[in-house]
Amino acid sequence: MKLQAPKGTRDFYPREMAWQNFLFDAWRKVSVRNGFEQVDGPVFESLDLYKVKSGDGIVSELFHFEDRGGRGMAIRPEFTPTLARMVADRAASLPRPIKWFCMPNFCRAERPQRGRLREFWQWNIDMLGLDSPIADAEVIYTAVDFLREVGLTSSHVRIKLSHRQTVQSILGKLGVPLDRMTEAFALLDRRDKIEEDQFAQQAAVLGLDADSAKRFDEVCRMKYRAGGLDKLRESLAIHDTLDDLRQLDEQLHAFGIADWCEYDLGIVRGLAYYTGTVFEIHETTGAMRAIAGGGRYDRLIELFGGPPTPAVGFGMGDVVISLVLFDKGLIPETIMPRPDVFALALTDAAAKQLAALCIDLRRQGLHTRFSYRSTRSLGKLLKEATACNARYAVILDDKIMERQVEVKDLESGEQWAVGIDQLPQAFSGRARDED
Amino acid sequence: MKLQAPKGTRDFYPREMAWQNFLFDAWRKVSVRNGFEQVDGPVFESLDLYKVKSGDGIVSELFHFEDRGGRGMAIRPEFTPTLARMVADRAASLPRPIKWFCMPNFCRAERPQRGRLREFWQWNIDMLGLDSPIADAEVIYTAVDFLREVGLTSSHVRIKLSHRQTVQSILGKLGVPLDRMTEAFALLDRRDKIEEDQFAQQAAVLGLDADSAKRFDEVCRMKYRAGGLDKLRESLAIHDTLDDLRQLDEQLHAFGIADWCEYDLGIVRGLAYYTGTVFEIHETTGAMRAIAGGGRYDRLIELFGGPPTPAVGFGMGDVVISLVLFDKGLIPETIMPRPDVFALALTDAAAKQLAALCIDLRRQGLHTRFSYRSTRSLGKLLKEATACNARYAVILDDKIMERQVEVKDLESGEQWAVGIDQLPQAFSGRARDED
Repeated sequence: MKLQAPKGTRDFYPREMAWQNFLFDAWRKVSVRNGFEQVDGPVFESLDLYKVKSGDGIVSELFHFEDRGGRGMAIRPEFTPTLARMVADRAASLPRPIKWFCMPNFCRAERPQRGRLREFWQWNIDMLGLDSPIADAEVIYTAVDFLREVGLTSSHVRIKLSHRQTVQSILGKLGVPLDRMTEAFALLDRRDKIEEDQFAQQAAVLGLDADSAKRFDEVCRMKYRAGGLDKLRESLAIHDTLDDLRQLDEQLHAFGIADWCEYDLGIVRGLAYYTGTVFEIHETTGAMRAIAGGGRYDRLIELFGGPPTPAVGFGMGDVVISLVLFDKGLIPETIMPRPDVFALALTDAAAKQLAALCIDLRRQGLHTRFSYRSTRSLGKLLKEATACNARYAVILDDKIMERQVEVKDLESGEQWAVGIDQLPQAFSGRARDED
Repeated sequence: MKLQAPKGTRDFYPREMAWQNFLFDAWRKVSVRNGFEQVDGPVFESLDLYKVKSGDGIVSELFHFEDRGGRGMAIRPEFTPTLARMVADRAASLPRPIKWFCMPNFCRAERPQRGRLREFWQWNIDMLGLDSPIADAEVIYTAVDFLREVGLTSSHVRIKLSHRQTVQSILGKLGVPLDRMTEAFALLDRRDKIEEDQFAQQAAVLGLDADSAKRFDEVCRMKYRAGGLDKLRESLAIHDTLDDLRQLDEQLHAFGIADWCEYDLGIVRGLAYYTGTVFEIHETTGAMRAIAGGGRYDRLIELFGGPPTPAVGFGMGDVVISLVLFDKGLIPETIMPRPDVFALALTDAAAKQLAALCIDLRRQGLHTRFSYRSTRSLGKLLKEATACNARYAVILDDKIMERQVEVKDLESGEQWAVGIDQLPQAFSGRARDED
């Protein structure tokens, strides 16, 4: 019998788990210092909840089942519908702006591939109830704050930004009628995946003549660093105030992250529900899937029965960011929790006192391990202490009857005698500071 | 349209989430200082995995579905099968003893009731590869270490212990044949749920005459504090060495937790896979469902294709322990992350500098919030700072042009002028220490 983790899922042994914890701790730390409050919801929701947002087509992408009452349920594939439901349900009582984060696991019935699994974790940052580009900028700032926290710089990654209203205004001037705008966005989104003649053909269907289609194609390719809006406006050769982008641009400067950002009018984020700013975080090499993606979704809370509520947010999965950090050598070497103390006994009488000594240290907050082996060899036992990367060894022999032990600093090799009542202080507070 | 969390599941708004985090942090801290390493597995597993451990009967208790290839899958109802699979898969390479903990969410298709939900979290502590009562005692010690950590004492809760071998030996001497032992355990387990005559009738089926049935019934009721094995032996009025319990008893004393423990031969833990020590943690009032339960399961890893591996562990759900702590007034008042700084602007010019100042403080690790409102009223803005429980207010007016701000200690009311370059130090390191 060979039982394995289901396809597209992962087992987290201590080393893999230590990495997940490192990532989760960084997500949480950055979220909290930027004023976001953590929330979570059920791991499964009613199937209807997902249909409200994404239509019936979503069902084939979900792991779904019936509960005991025959109601359709699905393991959550994303957090936004849960968030929208939770906000709509308490819209009257939640203080504004609502600044929430979460980092749950999600499941999608996808074909597993590099950077895409059936179960993954995702950091979600959402800010609701503030109708201002300050919210867009602060949400993007929070992403940048995390990227910096894990050692990435603006030379590694870039925030690619667009704005639905700006692009819509440009497309309108090129001749796309308002009722075909969604199709135009979809075409923009798949521009790089289709051939030139296919593109021209599909553009024609949207009412774009050859010239306009060429301009449309150029719009897809336009990329300008934040602060370069004048150049963008010129090169568009279409009179447009770019008001929405201008206001966002100001805030990106106010939050000091303009050098991480570039406008890329080809960024659409496939999802129909975005209403303003949209953005993706990509490696500057362009090598990978997006590290994160998000935008403004001002009409979603209404769709879930709540009042009109401006909203902006993003999601960042654990899989792609982990691959990026691994590729760039940014996974720290020592992510496993490090024991403060490893206790060992050199005589049978001393061994009887091991447990009592260890629990005393643990009660004082020290991460304390001891040897379960029957060997009394100092060399073998110290090897065990070193193998688990303990900071100090506490060595017990028959002097334990006089309440005396030896402490060995496993980094410097220094060793000295200590009365067991002085033990925690004997580590000069170092062990605990590192905790 | 009214969309709600599915029956038996919970939404975690910031306050509820802060409690979950408090609980998870305590679980994690206690696990780590006792030398356990965190692991995790997939949120769904193949249905077969659960059938291996629990038989086909388990299926109706699971939320199960088919993946894209038509394979039966189920959301995990517990961790043990995943753990057994993971240990069996790497049995040759994992260093012994294996000391693992996890705290995942689980789902069971149960009828929701007080203390029992369809989705819950559970702390699991497991120690494998050490065939010694030291392992049993250390696992139980780790539970006690947590109970103490959250403010419970041995007057609130008790570890009720039994031992399968001891009880089996007693039942054998009473006349239960070896091949009816499992039935006898089952009868022991439901003793308090059935009438006396039913009990006598079912005992007779197991080969117990009236006298023996009476003794059997007494065995169910026997409770002795740890250390009281002699009394237990006497009152059994059956010659039995109680060897297994005696060794465990020694270790409970060595780990200093004898006063938390009592022997209760009526504790069976329904599950067929336990092989030695079994225990449950109960309130001393007897009011509630078990807070935790566990025991030794020396044959499970083999069942999952691994080598013979001694193993002992327990699980503690989040629901019952939270109810207990709430009932006893042990939920701390301030569990929400507390902002170090709340920044506010008294002039429009100052408001333009708010973001830059805040991101500077955030980059230095301070949890910093600011007001998004257009009001310039000091009173209203300070009210907002107090509402989110910030430690300090940083007040910006036109003196920001000279790089000067006011800092207000929101606890003492003290206020003083600071140059913005001295800002983090101005909090005298207090804000960061409390982080």
